[in-house]
Amino acid sequence: MSGLVKELLSRGDTLDFVSHVLCFPWKTRNYQVALENANRMLLAEDISANTPYPPYDRSLRDGYAVNSTDVSGASSSFPVYLNLDGKISMGEIPSSELLPGSAMEIYTGGILPEGADSVVMVEDTELSEKWLEVRSSVQNGDNILKTGEEVKENQHLLKQGSLIDFCSIGVLATFGFSRINVIDLKVGIISTGDEVVPVDKSPLHPGCIRDVNSWTLCSLLKDHGFNVKTYGIIPDQKNLLRSCICQAYSENDVVLISGGSSVSVRDFCSELIEELPDPGLLVRGIQVRPGKPTLIGGSSEDKKLVIGLPGHPLSCSVVAYAIILPLLFRLISSRTMVPWKSLFLPLISDVHGKTGLEEFIPFQLDDSGRVIPKMAKSGYISAMYESSGLIRLSESVETVRKGEEVEVLLW
Amino acid sequence: MSGLVKELLSRGDTLDFVSHVLCFPWKTRNYQVALENANRMLLAEDISANTPYPPYDRSLRDGYAVNSTDVSGASSSFPVYLNLDGKISMGEIPSSELLPGSAMEIYTGGILPEGADSVVMVEDTELSEKWLEVRSSVQNGDNILKTGEEVKENQHLLKQGSLIDFCSIGVLATFGFSRINVIDLKVGIISTGDEVVPVDKSPLHPGCIRDVNSWTLCSLLKDHGFNVKTYGIIPDQKNLLRSCICQAYSENDVVLISGGSSVSVRDFCSELIEELPDPGLLVRGIQVRPGKPTLIGGSSEDKKLVIGLPGHPLSCSVVAYAIILPLLFRLISSRTMVPWKSLFLPLISDVHGKTGLEEFIPFQLDDSGRVIPKMAKSGYISAMYESSGLIRLSESVETVRKGEEVEVLLW
Repeated sequence: MSGLVKELLSRGDTLDFVSHVLCFPWKTRNYQVALENANRMLLAEDISANTPYPPYDRSLRDGYAVNSTDVSGASSSFPVYLNLDGKISMGEIPSSELLPGSAMEIYTGGILPEGADSVVMVEDTELSEKWLEVRSSVQNGDNILKTGEEVKENQHLLKQGSLIDFCSIGVLATFGFSRINVIDLKVGIISTGDEVVPVDKSPLHPGCIRDVNSWTLCSLLKDHGFNVKTYGIIPDQKNLLRSCICQAYSENDVVLISGGSSVSVRDFCSELIEELPDPGLLVRGIQVRPGKPTLIGGSSEDKKLVIGLPGHPLSCSVVAYAIILPLLFRLISSRTMVPWKSLFLPLISDVHGKTGLEEFIPFQLDDSGRVIPKMAKSGYISAMYESSGLIRLSESVETVRKGEEVEVLLW
Repeated sequence: MSGLVKELLSRGDTLDFVSHVLCFPWKTRNYQVALENANRMLLAEDISANTPYPPYDRSLRDGYAVNSTDVSGASSSFPVYLNLDGKISMGEIPSSELLPGSAMEIYTGGILPEGADSVVMVEDTELSEKWLEVRSSVQNGDNILKTGEEVKENQHLLKQGSLIDFCSIGVLATFGFSRINVIDLKVGIISTGDEVVPVDKSPLHPGCIRDVNSWTLCSLLKDHGFNVKTYGIIPDQKNLLRSCICQAYSENDVVLISGGSSVSVRDFCSELIEELPDPGLLVRGIQVRPGKPTLIGGSSEDKKLVIGLPGHPLSCSVVAYAIILPLLFRLISSRTMVPWKSLFLPLISDVHGKTGLEEFIPFQLDDSGRVIPKMAKSGYISAMYESSGLIRLSESVETVRKGEEVEVLLW
């Protein structure tokens, strides 16, 4: 124990304090995957362009490659006539130069010949034998992409730590990154509680409930590119919990202990995090509702982060989204932000907060983009279904009225 | 050919027309997966509660189970004293009833004994030997969840066609759905174009570009729960393209042909979709920018949908998001909507549209939730990276000025 333990920090201070004491970001282990297996993984390194893009002057239209000076002033009343000098095949560099007063037929994506600087769209022309009637002028660069117009060679493209998804995978494909280095951050998840049983336990033993939190945590963390492993459900016995935490600690970078709603489990958890290598326990309780009984510890030397989550399903989800994700993103990179979309949107009914506590409430959007709060107790299990994100009431906000704008974090 | 072909419909009319002619929704093939493999799959059937939730009256706090009438009027100045009658173990039904004038120690999640109707929080009590001093009154139901309070038995919970994700997987776990029926909608993806080469082709042959669209399509569709299979890159030859479309048609429910930006490929594509079983080609061109040259066909008898996409990467992404996803969601269910979040947000700079065309422009959000349009030509490959969604300019919108609100679809 290092005496560093902070009680009931705000969420922002918690993120800063833990990141600082544990010296985030850490150098992560990486591994290579084929691009076809890289969806929803995290880039281990910055990606820069190995060639300009497009690699050639390319047409954006079906039409005719021309030199813009040859068609200057052309209109339907005063067309210009050019000599049609062949056709450019797709996927080939034109073998000859465009001569003055000539045009070459070109398709969308075709490569411009030397001497051409623009494309006249097919609908602005009429072809008669070998003469092309051009009824519209073009400027240098019209209807084409110039070499390197979008991306210069060596230009920085994608950031280390960013998620590979449908918005970024095409960039990797364009530049031929058929194998990618991705981040291998391992997260072990332990469920605790004498009353908690596995999902396939049916019928339910009287007094028991099925494990919910490890499913939610797995799904959320997998979707954000982390490698998760579950360690089953551990009864409320300190020795069993200790040996499971030790095993998970040695096998993972991050250990999540999903409570255990009883006091004894929370106490065990706190004691066991204190037993870990220095500094051990860092944060006991966060000024967040739901989610207050969160525990955070870790070791910058071992490069381990350990988090004890509240047992209530809604509390666990809020902590996972509002505390664990931001911590993991700070852990892997100094430049990657959590993919939150923070907006201010109008409320459809009043919401009431409590000064001094940051509060999160799941919500749905109506068809007009207004926020419908889903009032739920922390023990509810369905409040997140069909939700669009979380309303955030900052520490200084008490009541937000119907029609006023409220801050929301969209998933 | 059925003579049904519509030219240049609006996007809304396209979705309605295709859904109507092809008799969406279709009965899909389903298969069972273990819950641990169900993340990002689509529920094949409605899910209802097989028990009430919570299954017992449970405590939401650490404290003491009481009968509220016994502590009526209790305050720190006028505390009430109760007889402490043991402790409730987690995961067990209390073996005895709560006697009048008594309290039982209970943890969060513990089950209330017969005779108790509420929980006094531990911080509102003081324990001295066998007497519990209670310094606060509670009402019937305070600090507990009553049996079935959140979910009644047989209550409808999750909709057929909805995505299993971190917001819904906990509901499945709660009710013991350890194996889930998910939708098996197979989507085959064909890339075309003489200039298009695979991602692992390095260095690039002069004049060629690497396939981008099949990667974007795969990623987007996988993330939304569809089973994708790629069929490689087919050169601009009608016979080769025909035999590949036929194979993909027989092996999948949906075939996507990612253009081929050349006229010849587009023409082949149109002819080949016309050759398919009735009605064949349904839509040639959509009033959407980018994405106008989209082709849609299919057969309600064979239960097949075939879509030809424009070759430009940005056009392909817009069509995938704004046309293909809504079609697939209508195909699988009459009740599932595309998981779009449609909002009106302030613009940081002017955007210009064209009356009569529905336009989509990728955008980023700034820290204040304002929309930064990412002006991009249709041939750009990086416009979607770090974007938050698409600005939508409807057919009737021309210019939206800086500071005005614009409609956006958030990913």
